[in-house]
Amino acid sequence: MNTLEKLVELFRQFPGIGPRQARRFAYFLLTRDSSYVNSLSSLIREAKKEIKKCASCHRFFTPNPKSKIQDECEICSDDTREQNTLMLVARDVDLEMVEKSGTYRGVYFVLGGTLPILEDSPEKKIRIKNLELRVRNDRKLSEIIFALNANPEGEHTAEFVAVTISPIIKEKNIKISYLGRGLSTGAELEYIDPDTLKSALKNRA
Amino acid sequence: MNTLEKLVELFRQFPGIGPRQARRFAYFLLTRDSSYVNSLSSLIREAKKEIKKCASCHRFFTPNPKSKIQDECEICSDDTREQNTLMLVARDVDLEMVEKSGTYRGVYFVLGGTLPILEDSPEKKIRIKNLELRVRNDRKLSEIIFALNANPEGEHTAEFVAVTISPIIKEKNIKISYLGRGLSTGAELEYIDPDTLKSALKNRA
Amino acid sequence: MNTLEKLVELFRQFPGIGPRQARRFAYFLLTRDSSYVNSLSSLIREAKKEIKKCASCHRFFTPNPKSKIQDECEICSDDTREQNTLMLVARDVDLEMVEKSGTYRGVYFVLGGTLPILEDSPEKKIRIKNLELRVRNDRKLSEIIFALNANPEGEHTAEFVAVTISPIIKEKNIKISYLGRGLSTGAELEYIDPDTLKSALKNRA
Amino acid sequence: MNTLEKLVELFRQFPGIGPRQARRFAYFLLTRDSSYVNSLSSLIREAKKEIKKCASCHRFFTPNPKSKIQDECEICSDDTREQNTLMLVARDVDLEMVEKSGTYRGVYFVLGGTLPILEDSPEKKIRIKNLELRVRNDRKLSEIIFALNANPEGEHTAEFVAVTISPIIKEKNIKISYLGRGLSTGAELEYIDPDTLKSALKNRA
Repeated sequence: MNTLEKLVELFRQFPGIGPRQARRFAYFLLTRDSSYVNSLSSLIREAKKEIKKCASCHRFFTPNPKSKIQDECEICSDDTREQNTLMLVARDVDLEMVEKSGTYRGVYFVLGGTLPILEDSPEKKIRIKNLELRVRNDRKLSEIIFALNANPEGEHTAEFVAVTISPIIKEKNIKISYLGRGLSTGAELEYIDPDTLKSALKNRA
Repeated sequence: MNTLEKLVELFRQFPGIGPRQARRFAYFLLTRDSSYVNSLSSLIREAKKEIKKCASCHRFFTPNPKSKIQDECEICSDDTREQNTLMLVARDVDLEMVEKSGTYRGVYFVLGGTLPILEDSPEKKIRIKNLELRVRNDRKLSEIIFALNANPEGEHTAEFVAVTISPIIKEKNIKISYLGRGLSTGAELEYIDPDTLKSALKNRA
Repeated sequence: MNTLEKLVELFRQFPGIGPRQARRFAYFLLTRDSSYVNSLSSLIREAKKEIKKCASCHRFFTPNPKSKIQDECEICSDDTREQNTLMLVARDVDLEMVEKSGTYRGVYFVLGGTLPILEDSPEKKIRIKNLELRVRNDRKLSEIIFALNANPEGEHTAEFVAVTISPIIKEKNIKISYLGRGLSTGAELEYIDPDTLKSALKNRA
Repeated sequence: MNTLEKLVELFRQFPGIGPRQARRFAYFLLTRDSSYVNSLSSLIREAKKEIKKCASCHRFFTPNPKSKIQDECEICSDDTREQNTLMLVARDVDLEMVEKSGTYRGVYFVLGGTLPILEDSPEKKIRIKNLELRVRNDRKLSEIIFALNANPEGEHTAEFVAVTISPIIKEKNIKISYLGRGLSTGAELEYIDPDTLKSALKNRA
């Protein structure tokens, strides 16, 4: 396999990329000037080197060289955030969306994924062990907000996590809550499901 | 224009039907046996004749020949429904979805449509006059639930209706509420808008 | 089942129409004035009564009351058309597209459908018996053009027809031809299949 | 802008990639092991270094270190290919599709793109100057096959090229041909345009 084909193979592993687009990526790079290609090549290595996983919430973050704290992200180490409220999200992009909305002032825990309905080794797919440790050792915690997708995989994951941490939760008297259900922006009554409608009626205001 | 072309023209006025599908409908009828064609032709006339608009909620309904009440639908004339709660919906199909969900025990008012953002004669597009009359004269009313689509046209319609009926509402001390916002079934955190997220956080439970 | 539900059931049988759109059609009719509804109801019956199948090509057509010929369509009975060239199409809409293009001056035969790959009774799905009769008895015929879809079902149908009529064809020395393959309008080289490319190369001009 | 954001910016320039997928690519790399990341980083540089443009057809190719010819690709330097037939394609991927089909034994010229309908500097978008040179100096050439997309941009490009090279073509008595038009695989009669139908009828066989 020559260099072009090897490159196509690596691009094929990118999320959502098929063989045709992988090839288009490779040709695209050939048409770019050296400065673009060298920047891309370097940034890929640098990103992997510079960006760390937060010891506390497990999201990816770039440590601030001037900061004393190098293993925790700027959210986890921010004293003005409410450290007693922990939001559970599946992925870094979910955390970013919540941050962008500017409506949440607590801290996070990134599970690292969701659980397919039939999954033999859930502890390999999501950071359930890390979460247990965190909940057990965190003395400030009073509420965990489950912010997972409102689809079967998200709900399955939520249930698995809730069952797994329930002994600690009870022992430490921590409240569990779930993001409210109702009409999402753009939702049309004609296409709504009974569950959403029931929640929307209950949460009417 | 011959009969086939005339028929195609009428089918083109069906909601969501373009010239190609209108033509396919016409040919489809030619291939069906007489019994289907005659049934369809008769039912179209009968439906128009038999089905009435409810004097109370304005939905389409088929009067029960054995019933004493002929001008009100079976929901409006049902004493076991909560007559003090009125749900405002845009169309008959919306009402049907809410009924199917089995989660609502009050009564309805069908506006007959929604208002485009720039609409010169709103009173021609929706039954705002009928609604005003209904709210003014209904002595049992204590709450009106706005159940309109969570999109710009739905929100614009809600605002217009709320402003229009606000004097009567205040005078009679009737509560106005809106279906709760939050994660619809299937919603994914990665694609959520800040408004929905804010409501989902507030309505967490 | 009441009149509305019966009407919805009939609309559900329309090609490409699901339960939701069938219901929308029924409500649409209720909102239309009597003149529209009565026209539709009448035209549906009239179309079925007035429109005949051509004895020669089997397409649907409206007999011209002033014409002496009442059982043949205006194409089949047109002396200026080339009666020695017969184009085989699957459906009336295909014939209409060819007529609209204005590029064909011969006559047609409408098969009435195509054959699914595994079809037990092909003679019930397409007018193969009528075609055999036509080809056997038509003294002017010198070429049959197969104008079927360039997809598996179209090709399967073409093959079945070709095999079935091959004895008569040979006996009467009639030529069989197929619409040329190549780049359709809009085709892109990047997505082309080898067969199309091969034909396009061969038919280059 | 930190390393992650810079990387997202570069991925956004990939063909067909929006901000959301660019970000997903960046996070994807963070989750991969060092071996994948280092391979990708290296291959991107190597591809740019190793892969050359063929001096003859202008496609990208990897020179064979054992070959005496280092500036021409394996197709152009292959004596068994018909050097008198030149196929004009827009992009490398088009050339690859034709090669994959195994139906063409001549050589190629890659234009490097197509011309938008309103393009001020066509000579900057496609290799028209290189093509003129090639056609003028190539003594073996007897036919040029235009293999461009059957869409407005492809046709516009073909016309521009044909007009530009017409003096040389006439002088040297070279034939110009175009890929044949007709039914592409999958084409349905009901949706066909008059031009395609006309060609399909003409090219029937």
